[in-house]
Amino acid sequence: MAHEAPFQLLHSELIHYICKTADGENGRSVTKLENMGFRVGQGLIERLTKDTARFKDELDVMKFICKDFWTCVFKKQIDNLRTNHQGIYVLQDNKFLLLSHMSAGKQYLEHAPKYLAFTCGLVRGALSNMGVKSIVTAEVSVMPACKTLNVESEMIYLTFDLGLKFLLRL
Amino acid sequence: MAHEAPFQLLHSELIHYICKTADGENGRSVTKLENMGFRVGQGLIERLTKDTARFKDELDVMKFICKDFWTCVFKKQIDNLRTNHQGIYVLQDNKFLLLSHMSAGKQYLEHAPKYLAFTCGLVRGALSNMGVKSIVTAEVSVMPACKTLNVESEMIYLTFDLGLKFLLRL
Repeated sequence: MAHEAPFQLLHSELIHYICKTADGENGRSVTKLENMGFRVGQGLIERLTKDTARFKDELDVMKFICKDFWTCVFKKQIDNLRTNHQGIYVLQDNKFLLLSHMSAGKQYLEHAPKYLAFTCGLVRGALSNMGVKSIVTAEVSVMPACKTLNVESEMIYLTFDLGLKFLLRL
Repeated sequence: MAHEAPFQLLHSELIHYICKTADGENGRSVTKLENMGFRVGQGLIERLTKDTARFKDELDVMKFICKDFWTCVFKKQIDNLRTNHQGIYVLQDNKFLLLSHMSAGKQYLEHAPKYLAFTCGLVRGALSNMGVKSIVTAEVSVMPACKTLNVESEMIYLTFDLGLKFLLRL
């Protein structure tokens, strides 16, 4: 089922529209997208934590973000959570929904900040509503682990794994 | 679970942003929202019909919209589908996701077109990709069937059923 498709397609349209209206100022579009993500994150966490028990500590909050929050938005959990126990958390999503429709390596790299800004805001907004102030940045590490998906009518479809890391500094 | 919340909140943010940037021109915002819905509808129907059998006729297409398509986007089916068998279809959703957060009767009525434009475009785009040209309009009939939901700490929460009809003219 394509149950994640409406959100993904709407997100793409949003980026397209914002970048068109921001008169080529890339930084401004990114800020706007981040702000929108922030507000959506606030709204979401309010609904999701309605019936949950109080969180023990920061790590507990972060686990909730990686499991429940991520599943609600992206239909899968974060693949890897690491921390230095001093306020830095690294969340890794190996198949990030909002980048999964981009396949090739170089041509998308310049567009990556636009496609990550909303999600950075989303996480920041969610944490903010749980009383955790944070700075959220994202970084893409393309792993060109090329897999042949389909060979059909002389066309070869290729795909690359996209490793996405979110870095949280609290 | 709040699995429909990300889409709903993103949709609200989108409306907010578009209306802000359209310099108060309500008609222009509505057109933009309709266009965005159109493109999302096209993308969605492509994914949803990838593995379905060929549709018999127009009514068959319309049933697919009411069941599979509606469930994918709004997490429920259309409640009622009527047709005059001459190209007019009336789809009724008694608890429409994108209006369900608005409760009272009059204050939202002037905002209704903004909240329905995207969905009208969505249906038009989906139908268009299935080879059906259409005009889609929406109409809200507020039924003030007041139900007391919760009486708690001297506050009374009230809710109203919202009857929403989509009229399709092919």
